Amino acid sequence: MINWTKSSSSNDDIVLSSRIRLARNVKGTPFPNKLDKDGARGLSKKIIDSFLKDNNENFSSVNLWENDKLNNRVYYEKHLISKKLINNREISSFIYNRDETVSLMINEEDHLRIQTITAGLNLKEAYSEADKIDDMLEERLDYAFHESLGYLTACPTNIGTGLRASVMIHLPAITSSNKIKEVSNILNRVGLVIRGSYGEGTEVLSNLYQISNQVTLGLSEEDLIKNLEGIVNEVINQEKKARDNIYENYRYELEDKIMRSLSILKSSVLISNKEALELLSNVRMGVEMGIIDIEKEKLNSLLYKISSPVIISEEGKGLSEKDKNIIRSKILKETLR
Amino acid sequence: MINWTKSSSSNDDIVLSSRIRLARNVKGTPFPNKLDKDGARGLSKKIIDSFLKDNNENFSSVNLWENDKLNNRVYYEKHLISKKLINNREISSFIYNRDETVSLMINEEDHLRIQTITAGLNLKEAYSEADKIDDMLEERLDYAFHESLGYLTACPTNIGTGLRASVMIHLPAITSSNKIKEVSNILNRVGLVIRGSYGEGTEVLSNLYQISNQVTLGLSEEDLIKNLEGIVNEVINQEKKARDNIYENYRYELEDKIMRSLSILKSSVLISNKEALELLSNVRMGVEMGIIDIEKEKLNSLLYKISSPVIISEEGKGLSEKDKNIIRSKILKETLR
Repeated sequence: MINWTKSSSSNDDIVLSSRIRLARNVKGTPFPNKLDKDGARGLSKKIIDSFLKDNNENFSSVNLWENDKLNNRVYYEKHLISKKLINNREISSFIYNRDETVSLMINEEDHLRIQTITAGLNLKEAYSEADKIDDMLEERLDYAFHESLGYLTACPTNIGTGLRASVMIHLPAITSSNKIKEVSNILNRVGLVIRGSYGEGTEVLSNLYQISNQVTLGLSEEDLIKNLEGIVNEVINQEKKARDNIYENYRYELEDKIMRSLSILKSSVLISNKEALELLSNVRMGVEMGIIDIEKEKLNSLLYKISSPVIISEEGKGLSEKDKNIIRSKILKETLR
Repeated sequence: MINWTKSSSSNDDIVLSSRIRLARNVKGTPFPNKLDKDGARGLSKKIIDSFLKDNNENFSSVNLWENDKLNNRVYYEKHLISKKLINNREISSFIYNRDETVSLMINEEDHLRIQTITAGLNLKEAYSEADKIDDMLEERLDYAFHESLGYLTACPTNIGTGLRASVMIHLPAITSSNKIKEVSNILNRVGLVIRGSYGEGTEVLSNLYQISNQVTLGLSEEDLIKNLEGIVNEVINQEKKARDNIYENYRYELEDKIMRSLSILKSSVLISNKEALELLSNVRMGVEMGIIDIEKEKLNSLLYKISSPVIISEEGKGLSEKDKNIIRSKILKETLR
């Protein structure tokens, strides 16, 4: 797998990353929300030990209760862990690999959430990696599994395969032509959902969305993934059509927006995260449409490098909003020059 | 004298140009608004002939009724002629020198308006040039002059010396701190007036103002000019204090505005005249404060180079607003790169 923030994926690729997450629980142990602290931390240790015993070269583990809160936020910004894992920080841990393409969250909503993320639209590869890790762990842990229902999970929507497949996708033209609602309705009808790029209940920033399956019961993993990839390709086509339409009718206005956005990102002295993300979306679209040439890797890494938690973790606490805005401008200048 | 649009005046100079205008009329001839077309055009020929007979190397003359309307607008954009002269185009003419620092308007409100413009705050030099031309013409034309009232003019406010002295001044900080009204009240109390940079009834663009005397009766030319220069120096000090205040309290915000403005001017694909002038004011302030370094000559010449009449006269008629906005961006890019 390829870390999506470091990927120089093909320029016309409007899917940034593909993610697979498998929900698993250990038989005979209450779900995390019913576990006391000692029980939960004990389970965490057990899972970490059993996984790391022959994977300790590429993987590290973090117990959130021992870790700085700010550092936890940095992992979140990188999409390595979820908000729920942070909320459960008194009992939660995670294991991740050096490339930051694999993350095993422990005591999130379920005992175990195996997550794999790779660059571009490549759910099959992400699933194949998640499946390998799942097989390995299944030999060492006794999973809660029901013959007809499948894997048992804390929330009924995850029962079955326990699989959620999702892609992070850049949809500026569908957004600006006010068609997100329309796309959302179509996706809902086929069991998919579109959300902010950090998943349920998160804001849409930089015109980045997450499209994922809602139900995991009744379809095989392969069919779920095939289904999602098919629909995502449809959304990609719609986005490209919307872009072509803008280009045909408002070519100069579009180029103006893109060129101005890039030059502001390269010249500002202070800038908010929100404004920077908006401008980065314009620049990304410019790259995806072949209007300007900037390495995608730079644009992808900026998505988290300019976030407040990452800035604070690099530059120290006690920074005012203005301080952060000044540092953000410097990071943008250095990265984009 | 130095053409203000071509001057690389010292960078901290916030006065772009100084202008003198003398109103004169020919004895025994009705004022232009009472003259019939033949009479007016005859007078025009008479003045032009008597002036050009020994000045034809450096000066040219234009009869507005023979000239393209658009070209008349170009002269207006360069501050060479007034709106009133254009309105009188059926009977009006003007003589101007190669450097475009001298302009003699014929059949404006008065038979003759001698105008001299030079770069920076230098009313004395502009007056001295206007005075020389006035002396020369007085030998050839019989001026309407009253022993106790002085020069007679179509409008009573010009009776006396017939002199109007004015400066074009850049006041972004006084403007942004909402103190223009205050400055205007003080100026009115000492017989001065502040207006848009094209004079009476014109819009303020690019934070450029014209400060001039209102009354010409009762003071000598020297005292009028001394008085105006003294007050203008006071306004300059107020503007500089307001800038220092912004710099002390909002240094990064100020630098941000200046850097963004410059980079938008250098990168836009289409831009309106109004927006470009606003951004140019920010850039000009940055130069005047020593924050960035761009030749003033470029900024000054852009003030008319990006105006719609000048664009049309260069690029041809039939341009849409969008066409002009695209051409304007190109001119800005070429000039500022």
